[in-house]
Amino acid sequence: MSLLKRLQLLLCGVVLVCQTVLADEGMWLFNDLPLGLLKQRYGFEPTKEWSEHLMKSSVRFNVGGSGSFISSSGLVLTNHHVGSDTLAKLSTPERNIMEAGYLAKTQSEELKAPDLELNQLMQIRDVTAEVKGAVTAGMTPQQAVAARRAIIARIEKAALDETGLKSTVTTLYGGGRYHLYMYKKYTDVRLVWAPETAIAFFGGDADNFEYPRFCLDATIFRVYENDKPAKIEHFLKWSAAGPEEKDVAFVSGHPGRTSRILTVDALKYQRDTAQPASLTNLRRAEIVLQQYGLRGRENARRAREDLFGVQNSRKARLGMLAGLQDPLVMADKVAAEQKLLAAVNADEKLKPLAAAWAVISDITKKRTEMLKKGVSVNSSLYGIALQLVQMAEEDRLPSEQRLPEFAEAGRESLLQQLYSEAPIYADLDQVLLADSISKTLEQRGFDDPLCQQILAGKGPAERAAELVRGTKLADVAFRKQLAAGGLAAIEKSDDPLIQLARVINPEARRIRRITEELDEQDRQAYASVAEAQFAVLGTSVYPDATFTLRLAFGPVIGYEQDGQQIPAWTTMGGAYQHEEAHAGQTDYVLPKSWKAAESKLNKSIPFNFVSTADIIGGNSGSPVVNRAGELVGLIFDGNIQSLSGNYVYTDRQSRSVSVNSGAIREALRVVYGATALDAELGR
Amino acid sequence: MSLLKRLQLLLCGVVLVCQTVLADEGMWLFNDLPLGLLKQRYGFEPTKEWSEHLMKSSVRFNVGGSGSFISSSGLVLTNHHVGSDTLAKLSTPERNIMEAGYLAKTQSEELKAPDLELNQLMQIRDVTAEVKGAVTAGMTPQQAVAARRAIIARIEKAALDETGLKSTVTTLYGGGRYHLYMYKKYTDVRLVWAPETAIAFFGGDADNFEYPRFCLDATIFRVYENDKPAKIEHFLKWSAAGPEEKDVAFVSGHPGRTSRILTVDALKYQRDTAQPASLTNLRRAEIVLQQYGLRGRENARRAREDLFGVQNSRKARLGMLAGLQDPLVMADKVAAEQKLLAAVNADEKLKPLAAAWAVISDITKKRTEMLKKGVSVNSSLYGIALQLVQMAEEDRLPSEQRLPEFAEAGRESLLQQLYSEAPIYADLDQVLLADSISKTLEQRGFDDPLCQQILAGKGPAERAAELVRGTKLADVAFRKQLAAGGLAAIEKSDDPLIQLARVINPEARRIRRITEELDEQDRQAYASVAEAQFAVLGTSVYPDATFTLRLAFGPVIGYEQDGQQIPAWTTMGGAYQHEEAHAGQTDYVLPKSWKAAESKLNKSIPFNFVSTADIIGGNSGSPVVNRAGELVGLIFDGNIQSLSGNYVYTDRQSRSVSVNSGAIREALRVVYGATALDAELGR
Repeated sequence: MSLLKRLQLLLCGVVLVCQTVLADEGMWLFNDLPLGLLKQRYGFEPTKEWSEHLMKSSVRFNVGGSGSFISSSGLVLTNHHVGSDTLAKLSTPERNIMEAGYLAKTQSEELKAPDLELNQLMQIRDVTAEVKGAVTAGMTPQQAVAARRAIIARIEKAALDETGLKSTVTTLYGGGRYHLYMYKKYTDVRLVWAPETAIAFFGGDADNFEYPRFCLDATIFRVYENDKPAKIEHFLKWSAAGPEEKDVAFVSGHPGRTSRILTVDALKYQRDTAQPASLTNLRRAEIVLQQYGLRGRENARRAREDLFGVQNSRKARLGMLAGLQDPLVMADKVAAEQKLLAAVNADEKLKPLAAAWAVISDITKKRTEMLKKGVSVNSSLYGIALQLVQMAEEDRLPSEQRLPEFAEAGRESLLQQLYSEAPIYADLDQVLLADSISKTLEQRGFDDPLCQQILAGKGPAERAAELVRGTKLADVAFRKQLAAGGLAAIEKSDDPLIQLARVINPEARRIRRITEELDEQDRQAYASVAEAQFAVLGTSVYPDATFTLRLAFGPVIGYEQDGQQIPAWTTMGGAYQHEEAHAGQTDYVLPKSWKAAESKLNKSIPFNFVSTADIIGGNSGSPVVNRAGELVGLIFDGNIQSLSGNYVYTDRQSRSVSVNSGAIREALRVVYGATALDAELGR
Repeated sequence: MSLLKRLQLLLCGVVLVCQTVLADEGMWLFNDLPLGLLKQRYGFEPTKEWSEHLMKSSVRFNVGGSGSFISSSGLVLTNHHVGSDTLAKLSTPERNIMEAGYLAKTQSEELKAPDLELNQLMQIRDVTAEVKGAVTAGMTPQQAVAARRAIIARIEKAALDETGLKSTVTTLYGGGRYHLYMYKKYTDVRLVWAPETAIAFFGGDADNFEYPRFCLDATIFRVYENDKPAKIEHFLKWSAAGPEEKDVAFVSGHPGRTSRILTVDALKYQRDTAQPASLTNLRRAEIVLQQYGLRGRENARRAREDLFGVQNSRKARLGMLAGLQDPLVMADKVAAEQKLLAAVNADEKLKPLAAAWAVISDITKKRTEMLKKGVSVNSSLYGIALQLVQMAEEDRLPSEQRLPEFAEAGRESLLQQLYSEAPIYADLDQVLLADSISKTLEQRGFDDPLCQQILAGKGPAERAAELVRGTKLADVAFRKQLAAGGLAAIEKSDDPLIQLARVINPEARRIRRITEELDEQDRQAYASVAEAQFAVLGTSVYPDATFTLRLAFGPVIGYEQDGQQIPAWTTMGGAYQHEEAHAGQTDYVLPKSWKAAESKLNKSIPFNFVSTADIIGGNSGSPVVNRAGELVGLIFDGNIQSLSGNYVYTDRQSRSVSVNSGAIREALRVVYGATALDAELGR
């Protein structure tokens, strides 16, 4: 965006800037909140009830996002781009919900998601001693993987049996702590309202991760139990006032993954090897999906969800890499590590921990080697085939010896995915399969024996066509029948994708085994790094993100960029000016509903706002609440400067971006005429 | 494109299919035409006058395309996508010729291209003995490079002095033969007519390299001498009849590069290493340019020409790679090589030639190593900086010892580019520079000393901003002033891009030197391969493409694909049906001029047609003539199946795609009202 355009945009919003920004780093555990910090910095002392209510009002989406309960009858608020996986699955060429939006006028019109699962965190237990105790000093990495897997499966199964809750052991501090998370599970989730993509993702890929923004990135679902709206005890009330400038905003959500504990050598591996490799794969996928989508409108519709995901990741990873390639960022990391290591080496008791750094450095070298010889064969149908093959094999073992996804505690969630009736588009799948076979040839070399087996005498495109044409795996009944027949059925199946999966399976398992052993060695080493940090920096260190519930906070506040003051919020009226400034560009056309409502809309209502709260991918859909625990916003993005937050937090320009809760209500009432829904939300 | 859509398209065109397709492989030298073959296959015996007239009517564009003279007053016909480099340079936000097209109503409205150079081939001489004689057995590769460079510079200079013609020695048969090509040069080239991109590139990237097609990919320039239209002796007359089904069509143009002589090991290097690496770079460039273009309409306009080039290359290389990854294609190559080697080894005199295969194999390994540690820093401004630095250094040497582009014979052409007043967009250049610095960090590793020098303590984006902001190289007068000051001026320049180029120059030169030595070793080895081919297969072998003039031929004929018969030509009316079939897609909207003219247009006129003539990139803009030497078409593309033609020709489905000359005339008259121009073209 040119500086001129930026300037024009600035005039659309209220300019509220403060020079003194406080450092609000941290994605805090709900069972270890930084009470002292909150009191000291914001004079705020959350009660036990305040935090328990916020925790139980928060929701995790299995597709990788966050959300919150917003009514006693099961309404759930999240982002459009978190709901979009479901919106795509519910869409057809004739009823394109993704593009046109949706409003259920009555409960009977609420549309059941084919495979969405929501989790509500009920309880956390520290199981560090049990998990660490199962792995002893003399074990090989392979034995350690097995021992840790077994104890975790036992803990999870026992908790499930005891409480009926979905129970998952989470590795924290890279292996320093283990906590058991127990979730209430909702699998009957129905769509209530979604706006048009044109306003949910206004500005498209160009505006993604940018600010100022003008997006109604919101969608409302409802959870059901026994075919009736679920009764929800903990849900968020809407704030009448909206975000208050400079006051602290609290974000309760599920940041997916950060890597702030990484040692300098591990960061260099990310910078020089892992991130560039991921970006190469993402750019490739992006072009393939674009090319498929260019063939026609229906193709574009089919590819849209995958394409959005790939573009989003590409832009996010470019931001992360930019952070790593900034000499000043790395210099800070080097200095911090040197300081920590100096303290460790100066203390006889801590000194043995220093060995972990060399172990981690060595692991990165092994990972670099692993990257060179992968098997990239990939498509939805192939993924199903491989899962069926591996499930048949794993089910012969006791639950605790299985690969974790096949253990008993997670079986229900697994089968909901495996037997989903969501559409699979064979033509798209074929394109992805052909490209991934081609990629595998490039990675392993064409003359590699496995490559020759995969090709079976044909070129990648021809082979993919033959495989997709021949498979029956698009039929859920066929999958169930194969699974019911166990390994014998798999072994005698003449389905070409099952046969291909059997050919690749040994190598896929070998690669996975080595990767898991490296992960295990990393866990043990980072447990030492974490111990060193606890010892030197105190226990007030928060763990890296793990797609589990965290609390982040920080003031609603603008920032300076290229000499310009960027306002803390934009207004709903600004959306119309943003459209005008980008006249003629496909992604900047407001939907008809917004044009029709223009004269009735209160344009001065804040639309999107920023705060310094520490978030990352996975936080999408997180509720933003005020001190009173009332909903003031809905996280949907971070600005471009926030992306290096994967490795290091700064609050100079890094901001989380939210939809103002008041803007959602104004749109529901004025643009979408959703009076019943609006009434249910109260206030 | 789905089969359904393909079927619909078929109904738009005339279905003309013949089951017996003849093999028409070959890009033949004008001084060594396959007269026997033409007589035997087509009963055609071209006279010396016929071929000399066609040769001198043909034109080479320095931007990498072909064309032909079509009037005695200097009119030149080529593709829109060959002219587009100039169209972009002549466009401004206010007068977007690229998008809106252009018609000069009078000669005074003809627009001068800022840096276009056209070459007309006047004469060819065989200089093999002289060039080969300069390199002797005991020389190191470095000595051989120097000796060959010196003899070539001497030959070219002598020819220039003798005739005043631009003279270039061309390496043929990978090093088996050397011919001196002597060209008349036209540097005052003016735009007469261009259609809208919407019809020139109808169907966009999705339809590129596809067939059936509906594109008016044509543009007309005029060459001037002494500010007056040049008098042209040899030009093509237009055929009244147009393409005749099944009759042979002749293509006279400049295929850029093929690699059919490559040994199997060299092909494996292309398949497993070189092509994947190129594709990775192209996908990256494509995303960068797309992202830049998304920021606004003016950005999209600025990036359009680069983006088209990158997308075109990406699709072409994917097609080449698909050929290499087809096991049957490679099996043919292996069988042919084994047969050739068996014959060589069976003959005591030929036997020593067999050693070349191992040499070539070894060179591919060295090239693989070279790929890993490049310097990718790149942008228009940086390119100018490096050229200024190297020119200052090279100009201290005698012409024949310089890098070839700085030798005297080519100085005029070099300076036309270096001092071009064509616009350079600093914001786009900055984005490309930032990305290429980032890429260099990834390739060499961030900690590489050269990378640290390039960064100078800043991240790639920040560094690129500083460099582009600080340089004065966008100003042509500044470039001339620097060049005039020689090496002393360069060395004391404080221009940050000149300083950067000086930092990178030693490594750029080192990489170039090694690459040239490998090229030289390849030339010597392929000279042996070519000798073996001449000895075993006879001298009727044509050389790989070298962007020099060649004759190709083959019948106008359809083909079968996915069980469907694809017609030999489409019709002008089909364009309207194609638009309808892709309603709502950006790249399938016909321009207003075509909508306005719909009722007046003769829709049954063939629009695009295919033939088996053997072409490749660089042939774009080539005239297609009939036996009478009359213009029947204008090459603008090959279908997707033709792309593996880089390595191997087949005529089962591979087709060259042309605009029918009659369609150009119909459009000029009916759509564009270009009556004066039409009259000048005669008939």
